[in-house]
Amino acid sequence: MTTKSNQFNLTVDEMPHRWYNIVADLPEPLPPPKDPDEGESRLEMLPRFLLKSCLQQETSTDRWIDIPEGIRELYIQAGRPRPLVRALRLEKALDLPSTIRLYYKREDLSPTGSHKVNTALAQTYYAQKEGYSEVTTETGAGQWGSALSYAAALNNLKCRVFWVRSAYRWKPGRRTMMNLYGADVFPSPSKETEFGRKILEQDPEHSGSLGIAISEGIEDALNREGTIYCLGSVLNHVLLHQTVIGLETMEQFKLAEDEPTLLIGCFGGGSNFGGFMLPFAGQVLQGKRECSFLASQSQAAPNLVEGKYKYDHGDHAGMTPLLKMYSIGHDSDLPGIWAEGIRYAGAAPKMSALRHHGLLDAVAYPADEVYVFTQARRFMQAEGFIPASESSYAVCAAIDKALEFKQKGKEGVIGFNVSGHGFLDMEGFAKPLGLEW
Amino acid sequence: MTTKSNQFNLTVDEMPHRWYNIVADLPEPLPPPKDPDEGESRLEMLPRFLLKSCLQQETSTDRWIDIPEGIRELYIQAGRPRPLVRALRLEKALDLPSTIRLYYKREDLSPTGSHKVNTALAQTYYAQKEGYSEVTTETGAGQWGSALSYAAALNNLKCRVFWVRSAYRWKPGRRTMMNLYGADVFPSPSKETEFGRKILEQDPEHSGSLGIAISEGIEDALNREGTIYCLGSVLNHVLLHQTVIGLETMEQFKLAEDEPTLLIGCFGGGSNFGGFMLPFAGQVLQGKRECSFLASQSQAAPNLVEGKYKYDHGDHAGMTPLLKMYSIGHDSDLPGIWAEGIRYAGAAPKMSALRHHGLLDAVAYPADEVYVFTQARRFMQAEGFIPASESSYAVCAAIDKALEFKQKGKEGVIGFNVSGHGFLDMEGFAKPLGLEW
Repeated sequence: MTTKSNQFNLTVDEMPHRWYNIVADLPEPLPPPKDPDEGESRLEMLPRFLLKSCLQQETSTDRWIDIPEGIRELYIQAGRPRPLVRALRLEKALDLPSTIRLYYKREDLSPTGSHKVNTALAQTYYAQKEGYSEVTTETGAGQWGSALSYAAALNNLKCRVFWVRSAYRWKPGRRTMMNLYGADVFPSPSKETEFGRKILEQDPEHSGSLGIAISEGIEDALNREGTIYCLGSVLNHVLLHQTVIGLETMEQFKLAEDEPTLLIGCFGGGSNFGGFMLPFAGQVLQGKRECSFLASQSQAAPNLVEGKYKYDHGDHAGMTPLLKMYSIGHDSDLPGIWAEGIRYAGAAPKMSALRHHGLLDAVAYPADEVYVFTQARRFMQAEGFIPASESSYAVCAAIDKALEFKQKGKEGVIGFNVSGHGFLDMEGFAKPLGLEW
Repeated sequence: MTTKSNQFNLTVDEMPHRWYNIVADLPEPLPPPKDPDEGESRLEMLPRFLLKSCLQQETSTDRWIDIPEGIRELYIQAGRPRPLVRALRLEKALDLPSTIRLYYKREDLSPTGSHKVNTALAQTYYAQKEGYSEVTTETGAGQWGSALSYAAALNNLKCRVFWVRSAYRWKPGRRTMMNLYGADVFPSPSKETEFGRKILEQDPEHSGSLGIAISEGIEDALNREGTIYCLGSVLNHVLLHQTVIGLETMEQFKLAEDEPTLLIGCFGGGSNFGGFMLPFAGQVLQGKRECSFLASQSQAAPNLVEGKYKYDHGDHAGMTPLLKMYSIGHDSDLPGIWAEGIRYAGAAPKMSALRHHGLLDAVAYPADEVYVFTQARRFMQAEGFIPASESSYAVCAAIDKALEFKQKGKEGVIGFNVSGHGFLDMEGFAKPLGLEW
């Protein structure tokens, strides 16, 4: 007897051999990064703390960029390819007609719990090839710091993570994970850098910010022998690496003998949704496919919904070059939410360009997160998997859209990306949902 | 170009269609459960709180028992089959010759984080078929409570979990997971049962015990309409359901074109190691295969290493029938360890019989866990996955054996079961390893 499977996966050989670069298919060139009118040149500094391979990819207009065999092997080690799943049980729970179908991609199967490993493995691979012995970075929610610590261990590199002090104190579990992988983790502001020491002199209990942590990471890379800085979102090469998600998904939809009409992802800086949807968006731009795209955001950081398309810094402190992006202001004060990983002021330039050209819709949910997590819980109880608090925004929007289609009598095949798991996010679910904590 | 893969997996159709029952191949019949000389009959009570289907399996001597198609579908939903991985990176880190090879089974990919879902899905499926609307159970570490909550949600059953109060307070994350799946979780002793109320009258702050929680779970099942009790380890039917692990592994070793000479698992009650090794042990008993088996325990609960093969109760309070097993005494006080899930006084009757017949070796590691987690960390940094604190005992023994083989110039193919992930075990790693917490 054969069992009907709702899981679609590729063999290791079928996993993508190339990343996809949307820049080749955009209606007009991607606006380049710029220097601000005043202060020292940020552009000239870039080669001093960014990997050569990544800088090349950052400005490449090639449609396809080969994934080095060594990175493919690391992807396999990390458990790729990851399955696409038809959400049959959720469809039933929502009482959907067979003309409305739901599929989700399981990036939650990642070793550290999020899609971030896809670029962390690539960047540490290049760092090792380029002769570095150490990587350094900042982290906010902790997902990126965990992913880079993991990837550094697999590439025999030391790793230093500057972690916003308030989160560092609050999340000992994630800090332990980084330590287990061998990383040194510093609460930022730290005594490791001149910038950090200066702030601590003024306020020894300073709770830190992502801007400060970025400044510390960059200073650390500039001053330490054999050390290079790594970034986890927003930049072109990061989204490039993440396209392994969408390229797999495209082949898996063929195995499912179905075609998505709407793809949904949660959205902060844009790396997980970019990785998921860019290969599909490219085919739409080439006239080969019809599909809509919806970014699911928080009203705490509604960069696509309320932001303006303008040149802005990528960080709070204004250390990065100016990037053309939808932004609510790089120095905005963003209210705290549990889904910390999508609380970001600017949208990646590649994603902002798609928004500008009318290919990307967006929705922003209330910052109290009660509604989002209530909808996500319907997914948990139907499908059995616990998405990250961030990924819950994708789940919520997918459920909302499916029910909207049903109400309107519309057909639709919705794909959404479960970008990470929620095993370390329990407090974040318990409090908005009123569960005992 | 093709990439050499170190991951071996089956298709959904290749996943086992039958569970394997070692009882058919034992050199002599498995000693049956007995009633104690005094007090009311435990055996007569069993049908009042255990599932009919499970009781039948409990005493079955059939070698193969069909997995109902509905349970296979649930296994697939939970992400089965799970891969077997050649630990190439760990082999390299340990500088092993090619004559010593390591493979691990990834039960850590389970939706709730452990192998427990394999029997939880089966038991809740049967509960639903037998017309119950609710399942009830106890939990110690929380893994079983999480698995049953999950499985109950997937089978549209309510779920009530009695959780030893000390752990209930200490692990809000795991409690939230159960709540997210819709379960009601009670700190035990609770006000839900007469037994619990009686204890609370004497001591309102009583910290509870597994024995008390079992008593509450059973009383709850006996007194509530449409409610049945479920058990997560030790019993024959539980180990039967878990053989899906080993049956998959056997086929995956064929894909790897290799044969294990030694299988290793962590061991408390015996359900994960039983599930992993029983199909192989059966072939050894049939003269079809040569393979050794090693259970990795804690000196906090060394039932196979120091226990006696005798009739004993399966629970602290003596509510269960007497089972013939290696036990250090059902009412022993066991020192606390972080790997709470393998802290159990008795070894499952099936596993005890194998031990008695000379097929099962055992080792017990110091209860401070420093050595075990230090060895496990070598696996984390080489392979990138974080095993559960319990599974770390399997990892540690596998590394020790591989290094012993190397030192002695012996050949060996070692398979070990990573029974769960450690995302919720970070405090347990941090403290013995002296990491900041």
